[in-house]
Amino acid sequence: MKKIVAGVDIGGTNTVIGIVTQQGECIGEVSFPTQEDNDFTSFVARVASQIKKLLSTLNTEYSLVGVGVGAPNGSYRTGEIIDAANLRWKGTLPLASELSKLLNVPVKLTNDANAAAIGEMQFGDAKGMQNFVVITLGTGLGSGIVVDGRLVLGATGFAGEFGHSSVKPWGRQCGCGKQGCLETYVSAPGLRRTAFKLLADSIEPSTLRGYSYESLTAKKIAGFAQQGDSIALEAFEYTGAMLGMKLADLVTILSPEAIFLFGGLSGAGSVIFEPTKRHMEKNLFPIFRNTVKLLPSGLKDKNAAVLGAAALIWQDL
Amino acid sequence: MKKIVAGVDIGGTNTVIGIVTQQGECIGEVSFPTQEDNDFTSFVARVASQIKKLLSTLNTEYSLVGVGVGAPNGSYRTGEIIDAANLRWKGTLPLASELSKLLNVPVKLTNDANAAAIGEMQFGDAKGMQNFVVITLGTGLGSGIVVDGRLVLGATGFAGEFGHSSVKPWGRQCGCGKQGCLETYVSAPGLRRTAFKLLADSIEPSTLRGYSYESLTAKKIAGFAQQGDSIALEAFEYTGAMLGMKLADLVTILSPEAIFLFGGLSGAGSVIFEPTKRHMEKNLFPIFRNTVKLLPSGLKDKNAAVLGAAALIWQDL
Repeated sequence: MKKIVAGVDIGGTNTVIGIVTQQGECIGEVSFPTQEDNDFTSFVARVASQIKKLLSTLNTEYSLVGVGVGAPNGSYRTGEIIDAANLRWKGTLPLASELSKLLNVPVKLTNDANAAAIGEMQFGDAKGMQNFVVITLGTGLGSGIVVDGRLVLGATGFAGEFGHSSVKPWGRQCGCGKQGCLETYVSAPGLRRTAFKLLADSIEPSTLRGYSYESLTAKKIAGFAQQGDSIALEAFEYTGAMLGMKLADLVTILSPEAIFLFGGLSGAGSVIFEPTKRHMEKNLFPIFRNTVKLLPSGLKDKNAAVLGAAALIWQDL
Repeated sequence: MKKIVAGVDIGGTNTVIGIVTQQGECIGEVSFPTQEDNDFTSFVARVASQIKKLLSTLNTEYSLVGVGVGAPNGSYRTGEIIDAANLRWKGTLPLASELSKLLNVPVKLTNDANAAAIGEMQFGDAKGMQNFVVITLGTGLGSGIVVDGRLVLGATGFAGEFGHSSVKPWGRQCGCGKQGCLETYVSAPGLRRTAFKLLADSIEPSTLRGYSYESLTAKKIAGFAQQGDSIALEAFEYTGAMLGMKLADLVTILSPEAIFLFGGLSGAGSVIFEPTKRHMEKNLFPIFRNTVKLLPSGLKDKNAAVLGAAALIWQDL
């Protein structure tokens, strides 16, 4: 029997399960709303039964050897989800141990950004790289850091909270309770906040002036920027300046070979990559100039989270 | 015969050589001016002959098994000193290979801050720690970073230039050509610059008003702060605020168990530790609060650089 792995991506809205081969092919997939179960134990039972169901539809030559899970606030060290703001079940949730009991295979858990980094190393464009960073740009900013081929977890197991480094003392209010965190500037909502500030500061005509705060998405701003709207372009310039400046800090500390931008905002292409790269180089300590590649993720967007989760298991086999 | 290691600390002014036991005892030491030799090869020959001379004065039961060297811009990966601003010999200096040829033992080289980190792990208060950072506070700010028990060198071999992360865009002019680098605020000269800014901004009486820029040392400012001079105290408060804010960034990225302050400025005691700790905690992402120890180095100041250099060899044996 051929070995096979399940990758699980637990999001605030949907949970996606994929059956992933050693080559990073997803040969079966299912998705269901995350928050339908009243208690966490029922949710875990649902995940287990969905994995079994997916396996039963496959060729019988496959044997499940492990399950990798990416989840908000997932701890690799303990296998627990700890105080995840976007999930209805509160406190410490022993996901890995409960799921492992139901399926009789090892279960590994980590957060979304770490899963993205492992996925990039196993199946994407970081193959063979020893030192790199993946930055996930979505509703927040996450980071997965690899040093000497290993994920950096730190003493607490929660290293890589780069989105909560400070970009501006007494700056924008952050959901974490602090002010001026990087993700309040560099993320989908951060881009929108910047656009609204620019609309307030300037008298430049802009298509953006017809949108409410609630209706203006990062995707729309990206579309208008690509059409040449000057406020939209300036919003990306400012976002790239903030990200580039902080990436320069990250490089002085870690000196990675490459930095990958992954997810939502990175799809905007050159309007985000070009200013980010320019401001990063400008702020770099001279010996690091032109030593770091700024790249889009090599994982196809569709299954990236699931592939990353599955890679947690494949990397050990 | 018992194994013994030589530790060499190459500074801009003096070179110190010590013979160091596996327990971190320095059983012989010599010091000479670094820049007396016209060419680098003569300097290396002098280091080798001084080591031999030191060994000859010892009990014959010792056998040299390696030499560890700490030097500005020393690369661990290549064993070369590269474009060190404070040395008279320019370009790329193949220190490790030349010294190794003369002594017939392995020679390992790294920069001062990395040597301090390895020394702290081998002989100091980081014994048994897997994740920690050593910050050296002298004429500049250096950092040695250990993740999972190993020194972080990065893709270029020059990781850990934390002193050149940005603390203020368009801030103070730095020797590296950038503006606003952390070490322009947090270092012996940085403290002096802050004191002079405060003397200019306020009309507060202060003993510091009697000193020229050239004559006011960090040590004097520390002495006046301990005596209660309000400008001197405010200079330390500001220095601690800058350092604490950037250490909070470092913790969000790496989540170390401890951060050690080492060298010059750290000798000022609570006037630097207290504000640094307070501002670090204030700026930390909540899950990291009270997870990081801020500690003085556990190495005795006198031989710390030599012990750290020797530890480069002992850690492998």
